[in-house]
Amino acid sequence: MPSNPDWVKALRPAGPQGSELLSAERAKSDVNVDGLAEHLFTAEALARKARILDLLKKDPVFDKAQDCFRGRESRIVAALARGKRLRQLAVQHGWTTDEEYAANDLVGEPNPYGLHASMFLVTLREQSTPEQRRLFYERAARYEIIGCYAQTELGHGSNVRGLETTATWNPEDQTFTLHSPTLTAAKWWIGSLGKAANHAVVMAQLCVGGRRLGPHPFVVQIRDMQTHEPLPNVHVGDIGPKFGYNTMDNGFLLFRHLKVPHVSMLARFAYVDPATNKYVRPASASLLYGTMTWVRSNIVLQAGGVLARGVAIAVRYCAVRRQFQDQDRPAADDAGETQVLDYTMVQQRLLPLLAATFALHFAGRAMIEQYQANQAEQAKQAEQAADRLADLHATSCALKAYGSTLAGEGLEVCRRACGGHGYSAFAGIGAWYADYLPTLTWEGDNYMLTQQVARYLLKQARAVQLAGGDAAPSPADNDTTRILKDFWRRRDMGAAFDVLGSEQDVVAAFAWRVAFLTFEALRHRDEDRQTWNALLVDFWRLSTAHAQYMVVKHFYEAVHAPRTAQALDAPTVAALRTLFRLHALHTLETGAAEFFTSGACTVRQIQLARTRTVMDLLAAVRPHAVRLVDAWHFDDWTLASSLGRYDGDVYTDLFHRASELNPLNDVVFDPRPDSSVLLKRDDRRPIASKL
Amino acid sequence: MPSNPDWVKALRPAGPQGSELLSAERAKSDVNVDGLAEHLFTAEALARKARILDLLKKDPVFDKAQDCFRGRESRIVAALARGKRLRQLAVQHGWTTDEEYAANDLVGEPNPYGLHASMFLVTLREQSTPEQRRLFYERAARYEIIGCYAQTELGHGSNVRGLETTATWNPEDQTFTLHSPTLTAAKWWIGSLGKAANHAVVMAQLCVGGRRLGPHPFVVQIRDMQTHEPLPNVHVGDIGPKFGYNTMDNGFLLFRHLKVPHVSMLARFAYVDPATNKYVRPASASLLYGTMTWVRSNIVLQAGGVLARGVAIAVRYCAVRRQFQDQDRPAADDAGETQVLDYTMVQQRLLPLLAATFALHFAGRAMIEQYQANQAEQAKQAEQAADRLADLHATSCALKAYGSTLAGEGLEVCRRACGGHGYSAFAGIGAWYADYLPTLTWEGDNYMLTQQVARYLLKQARAVQLAGGDAAPSPADNDTTRILKDFWRRRDMGAAFDVLGSEQDVVAAFAWRVAFLTFEALRHRDEDRQTWNALLVDFWRLSTAHAQYMVVKHFYEAVHAPRTAQALDAPTVAALRTLFRLHALHTLETGAAEFFTSGACTVRQIQLARTRTVMDLLAAVRPHAVRLVDAWHFDDWTLASSLGRYDGDVYTDLFHRASELNPLNDVVFDPRPDSSVLLKRDDRRPIASKL
Repeated sequence: MPSNPDWVKALRPAGPQGSELLSAERAKSDVNVDGLAEHLFTAEALARKARILDLLKKDPVFDKAQDCFRGRESRIVAALARGKRLRQLAVQHGWTTDEEYAANDLVGEPNPYGLHASMFLVTLREQSTPEQRRLFYERAARYEIIGCYAQTELGHGSNVRGLETTATWNPEDQTFTLHSPTLTAAKWWIGSLGKAANHAVVMAQLCVGGRRLGPHPFVVQIRDMQTHEPLPNVHVGDIGPKFGYNTMDNGFLLFRHLKVPHVSMLARFAYVDPATNKYVRPASASLLYGTMTWVRSNIVLQAGGVLARGVAIAVRYCAVRRQFQDQDRPAADDAGETQVLDYTMVQQRLLPLLAATFALHFAGRAMIEQYQANQAEQAKQAEQAADRLADLHATSCALKAYGSTLAGEGLEVCRRACGGHGYSAFAGIGAWYADYLPTLTWEGDNYMLTQQVARYLLKQARAVQLAGGDAAPSPADNDTTRILKDFWRRRDMGAAFDVLGSEQDVVAAFAWRVAFLTFEALRHRDEDRQTWNALLVDFWRLSTAHAQYMVVKHFYEAVHAPRTAQALDAPTVAALRTLFRLHALHTLETGAAEFFTSGACTVRQIQLARTRTVMDLLAAVRPHAVRLVDAWHFDDWTLASSLGRYDGDVYTDLFHRASELNPLNDVVFDPRPDSSVLLKRDDRRPIASKL
Repeated sequence: MPSNPDWVKALRPAGPQGSELLSAERAKSDVNVDGLAEHLFTAEALARKARILDLLKKDPVFDKAQDCFRGRESRIVAALARGKRLRQLAVQHGWTTDEEYAANDLVGEPNPYGLHASMFLVTLREQSTPEQRRLFYERAARYEIIGCYAQTELGHGSNVRGLETTATWNPEDQTFTLHSPTLTAAKWWIGSLGKAANHAVVMAQLCVGGRRLGPHPFVVQIRDMQTHEPLPNVHVGDIGPKFGYNTMDNGFLLFRHLKVPHVSMLARFAYVDPATNKYVRPASASLLYGTMTWVRSNIVLQAGGVLARGVAIAVRYCAVRRQFQDQDRPAADDAGETQVLDYTMVQQRLLPLLAATFALHFAGRAMIEQYQANQAEQAKQAEQAADRLADLHATSCALKAYGSTLAGEGLEVCRRACGGHGYSAFAGIGAWYADYLPTLTWEGDNYMLTQQVARYLLKQARAVQLAGGDAAPSPADNDTTRILKDFWRRRDMGAAFDVLGSEQDVVAAFAWRVAFLTFEALRHRDEDRQTWNALLVDFWRLSTAHAQYMVVKHFYEAVHAPRTAQALDAPTVAALRTLFRLHALHTLETGAAEFFTSGACTVRQIQLARTRTVMDLLAAVRPHAVRLVDAWHFDDWTLASSLGRYDGDVYTDLFHRASELNPLNDVVFDPRPDSSVLLKRDDRRPIASKL
């Protein structure tokens, strides 16, 4: 579309301008934005980010302006180009893994190399013999072969044992035959498989001498190295458009009696001895157990930043957007319209999410630190480390489920808080939300995971019950068992927590509720003999309660940690403390029923929390909201949002993108229903991607 | 992509097949599917639907197979073609308005004629003088002119009084000058404006003799009738892609001192007298008041069907999808994997939504019947009718906000209940959800509306308080005042409802909670003198509680109405009653805190509801789930969902669409990062739309 006529270019938004409003917001808070940013991310990480951002902004291949106008095919081809350029930059600048991850985060969209760079390389590194490292891992690390990790099938996701693809050992020629016996055996949802990969790690049921030995990993070439066409007896392709994640080529894969050599089976842990044709048992899987804990802890950490992106956009826009005069203000006083962020109904939706971004960040960081400390200890005291790993694993399951759900659903709340304009693609929230949603399903479906948490808590509760709450014979001694023991000792005397007055007591109330729900579930299971299935809803509630306790606890500890007092000035620490209290009491209020049925607090306390304390905390956070989102250091280039602009120039940006960048304005419709002509004029130029 | 090789075509899903599983589901329930469908929609409406569906299926322009592969531009052009064909069919078959609506529902996507056929025509019909009817309405009804309704602006949505566009009366030449003084004055979000309309009803601030007289409607030509290019001093276009609704050309519009004749101002209610240059005051706006009530009541009715579409897909898929063996089953007994719908965690998410679809349907129908009855009475007893309309209006606000939120959020729950495959575009839920979301914002933002509900309830409560709860001096006598009076009388003695045992008592408990919250809010406002803004969150809770009461009450009455007993056999009525109890108790459980802080029930009742009664009701609904969704009579063509297929052949359909219809499989990537080639091969044929 031709650029706007001069008389339109001359128009300004009605005053006050967004830039004035955001400056005023920043002026009225004394939160130290850069200090807080360094505390969250470290100065080193911020510098790294700035350095890389600079490179990306200069390169037209990363220009996001056209992204929301592209169809799926055009978008994924653009993503392929970006993936290639990212790799080229990594080679050119000798990027570390951290730098590669930082660059990917900044680009902010999945690309067809995503699963090659993660699961494919990790699996080859961790499960290869030295020979296989040379043969597969080293070439993959150099991107000479491109791969993916093919586990999920059309008919089986969470239930890995149910996978149907078979890998049968042929003693006669010492090969394996990979085969898909049914349609539901088709590998499905496999990232980087649909279009990009020429190799795949395939999880298949190993069959030796007629015995099924469960899923094992096989490295299989699936496409020709020159033509990139599928190999014979391999059927592979892209599974089609999705609600989001459309820049990734999730794929399908079927085998028809495909023979692969003995070396294809990744043999570090389990293998078939070609001399004896015997299957040799795997070593303990605790290594993978650890890896999953690590992956989930990172999801928790990321959840804070993912949500913060939506909160930053919504908070800035709601500070710029003004609507209606204050009802109670005398008609005489014409102070113009009220900033939407001043309405308690908007604060109630956005500010607890603002608090949650920090809560999740600190919880994720704590998880990762505990995991690293534990890995370090493993050498010394293996057994205690194993106990603690079990606890960490359960906690990481609970936090992954809770954190990613909170972030995903929170983003939609942010989008709606932006009113009508939140629905525009230029708001920059909708697509971000849609791309994030898979996180609620992968690395353990958020509902499935809660069963593992419950299983662990019930096990610990049984031990505590047996021990009569005493130290001896003591079950594994960790935070979880401590809160269970504490509850068990005081179960008859009950509790009385000053949840409104004492920060420590709020944390204790969350712990009490977890312990109460655990022993209640234990009674249903062990005494009432209820089926596991009948208890799944209780287990889900229990896991959520456990996750909420952990997040509240970690947030409390982060706010009160000496390093926080050292790193931050008083006003900034004070703002964090207010956020902690808001997060804790808002969460308590939403779970009210469980809190007083468990006796963790009284009906009166709930009433006060909801009608007074939480409202007071919202008012206390309000003046710092814009600076607190600034502390996440999102660059406008990253947010790619008209509503979330740092300078608040929302309306001009929305108008520019709609009128001057929108290709639909390069065509003219024929509106007459009786005319079979659709377009009277079409001046579109195709938006091609190139490198 | 070439069709699948024969060895792939020969593959079947692992047994049992989806068709067998769904047949078994239908066999084990005695719910009368067609009887229930007739009861919900009437035999006449079902016949009409079948007749029209038959026409649409035959016409390739309505073929949905390619929809989810199209980019935004391609989709809206296809929607334009469909809009034209729908109009042609309407003319050819002499469709009634009901038939036109039915056809639009079946096509199931917005199109660029949407706002012409609704708001543009309705406004012209209701607000025109006889001369204007001839000049505008009649030509618009014949589609000789295509129009839209331009109210919302870039800077103002909910606050209509704040609109910036001006229409200034020029006595010298008896014209109006339409002008956009700022960028935020740009009309924005206007459906059918972006590409289709050549006329618009523009809401502008009327200025006469230097006085601003508020927003008034003007009919303005904006594009040339031959070239369809914008007229001079008019800047108009499409506002760009959105989270959904991309088959609609929501547009922007700016005026630069555009002169329009006196006849342009729709003058049925208010006008400028050209002889005297005087502004003549409008008659009562109660007509529009009534229209909004009508529109919102329909949103409530539709919300049931909108949600039912997602529930139907999810329930059928969860009956076909099997995963994991039952934990408590002896390893010996190998009954294969469990249907996902048998897991209580899935039932807890889906079955209350299944109940909600019927609840919303009956509530919407009741609203519409009350509205019609009231309109009929208006002639006779104007005053009582006005009172009742005020009550209906408040109720319609509460129900619109609650119903559309429940439906919108419920659809996302359905999508997630489908696990990984729910994320595929072929699931058919994601796009449906994204297209529905605007309903939560338009016709009154769901949060804004709750203020109107609260204002009405507080007014009634004041009157009841004044009257000391007695009949005299009585405030308007209607259901709302009755529950307020009842509570006021018993406020000290309190209540004791058998919410678990008596269906009537559950309804009474919901009423008690509404009254409690109303008088609590009244105290905060009148005695504690809290600001309106400070109470917005309480008002939102109050409005939601009121809506939940109305829905539960209407559902109860619908289930126990004589016409229901006459129309349906005992097993079907029994199933509806179970759904009613599930809906009521599940809603009670989610609002637990308010129910016992209000004394509507005890903590013990809540505990029993959540741990026992609701679980028992889920088990009671489970066997009828598939037949109950069948009763909504969705055709596979309408659902356009692999997962929701009536025959349960989920996996074959998913695979066919992904592998054989997916245009991304017509290209071959070059995966080498160091190669600047992106596509090695590209066999795509463009998917053009024509009529």
